[in-house]
Amino acid sequence: MIAIDWGSTSLRAFRLDESGQVREQRRSTRGVLAAEGRFAETLREQIDAWDDALIVMAGMVGSRQGWFEVPYVDCPAGLGEIASALQRLPADEFAEREIWIVPGLRSRNDAGAYDVMRGEETQICGVLAELASQPQTVCLPGTHSKLATVANGRVERFATAMTGELFELLCSHSVLGRLMQPGEHDADAFAQGVAHAARAGDLLHHLFAVRTLGLFDALRPTQLRPFLSGLLIGHELNDLPADTGTVHLVGASSLLAAYKAALAVRGHAAHGHSELASAHGCYALAKQARLLA
Amino acid sequence: MIAIDWGSTSLRAFRLDESGQVREQRRSTRGVLAAEGRFAETLREQIDAWDDALIVMAGMVGSRQGWFEVPYVDCPAGLGEIASALQRLPADEFAEREIWIVPGLRSRNDAGAYDVMRGEETQICGVLAELASQPQTVCLPGTHSKLATVANGRVERFATAMTGELFELLCSHSVLGRLMQPGEHDADAFAQGVAHAARAGDLLHHLFAVRTLGLFDALRPTQLRPFLSGLLIGHELNDLPADTGTVHLVGASSLLAAYKAALAVRGHAAHGHSELASAHGCYALAKQARLLA
Repeated sequence: MIAIDWGSTSLRAFRLDESGQVREQRRSTRGVLAAEGRFAETLREQIDAWDDALIVMAGMVGSRQGWFEVPYVDCPAGLGEIASALQRLPADEFAEREIWIVPGLRSRNDAGAYDVMRGEETQICGVLAELASQPQTVCLPGTHSKLATVANGRVERFATAMTGELFELLCSHSVLGRLMQPGEHDADAFAQGVAHAARAGDLLHHLFAVRTLGLFDALRPTQLRPFLSGLLIGHELNDLPADTGTVHLVGASSLLAAYKAALAVRGHAAHGHSELASAHGCYALAKQARLLA
Repeated sequence: MIAIDWGSTSLRAFRLDESGQVREQRRSTRGVLAAEGRFAETLREQIDAWDDALIVMAGMVGSRQGWFEVPYVDCPAGLGEIASALQRLPADEFAEREIWIVPGLRSRNDAGAYDVMRGEETQICGVLAELASQPQTVCLPGTHSKLATVANGRVERFATAMTGELFELLCSHSVLGRLMQPGEHDADAFAQGVAHAARAGDLLHHLFAVRTLGLFDALRPTQLRPFLSGLLIGHELNDLPADTGTVHLVGASSLLAAYKAALAVRGHAAHGHSELASAHGCYALAKQARLLA
């Protein structure tokens, strides 16, 4: 089968064998935004020469801005609830194949506000077999990071933090970005940022430390970017309960290293999972939905 | 005399009579960034035909990126400390006049981190006569908002919040900005944002509510911008102690109205001061420094 992780800004395709092992993979930057509505053509190019009959797609491709909108499934939800809400894409261009789209998840917090994910539920499905049944914290870092609680094979609830997007915005467009100079990754400055985030005061105030620490030479211009990265990740981790056990990290290995370092500064243990979680999740869902022989 | 408030993105000039009343004023967008080093020429054009012999300038013009760097004065500081640290600009182009630059202030918080202001100290000097001697909270909204404690005529300490800059960044460059539609100011959506900021959770998480509330039709696309504005101002106000009395607001009247509304949602009384605080502050400092007859 073919597994597709089609997000806003990236498109990953995996070819899996009958046992669920990834045999080939392709990445491109032709995310939902870049596809500009030409979804069928983009997909055909991405999986060129892969003739598998079953395709399972997850991510923003199933959103209102994507190819075909699949409604959110409410938490708590696990393999069973998600697999039974897969929807088959009515695509004439691929009449010789079966294409299924994975729904996103919706979570409601204590104050009644909703949160949503699309794509991360599939990554979680891909690591479910590795999680114990008692409540586990799963962190999926990224543009819009997700912090989820998983218990008994189901996502109980989750919250989004706009960590990655804010980091890019501040580096590219803010007065802070103009003070930064490129340099090697600086683990000390990163850890300082993580620690700074635990101080009293709101993020709006803490951000200004990037300016003042630079102004009075407590940080060199090359250290401002790693300090800001640590500050933002630290703020995301402020929402972790103090008694949180091992945090399960799922995502790209470069981001996972930063989150592992940040969690260590805060005294939390971390366990990193495979970068192929998304492919494994599509496979697990296909199995659950009996789409595979 | 002439009073100048020269910030990063704006330049305001005031002509005052002997009693300190503002007789004329001019604004332009030729802030320190736009002046591109041509400070003398920019000033000459801004005050064209005003022949007063004394000019007092406040704001980023006295920063490292400005015309002439004047070192920060440490808090606590009032008229006396600031006036005695005014520096005369060595400008041959204005040999027939006296030009003085007001220093910025530096504050150190309990954790030992510095904060800085340039320009706002002069606005505070302009309203000092209206403040009681016991500790007062002064809020100066803007790109980089300042929340200061003033007692016995001196600024005791202050903190910066990057509220205005983050609002502009998010509206102009983020995924949230793409969801927004222009519309009339919506006081209800603004108040909802202020209230949302008081919930549990970090700003990084709360920001995503702009997306989810829009997604499930709790807010219309035209309401997302005022909601975000309330959310950010509300987060800035999260750092106000619960027992804060009347908050003294100093700044542009449009911003003051928003902050008054936000303070009301949180149960704080507010008192707005004159938009001419900057000019009055330059005058008070000139008097204190005996630069005026």
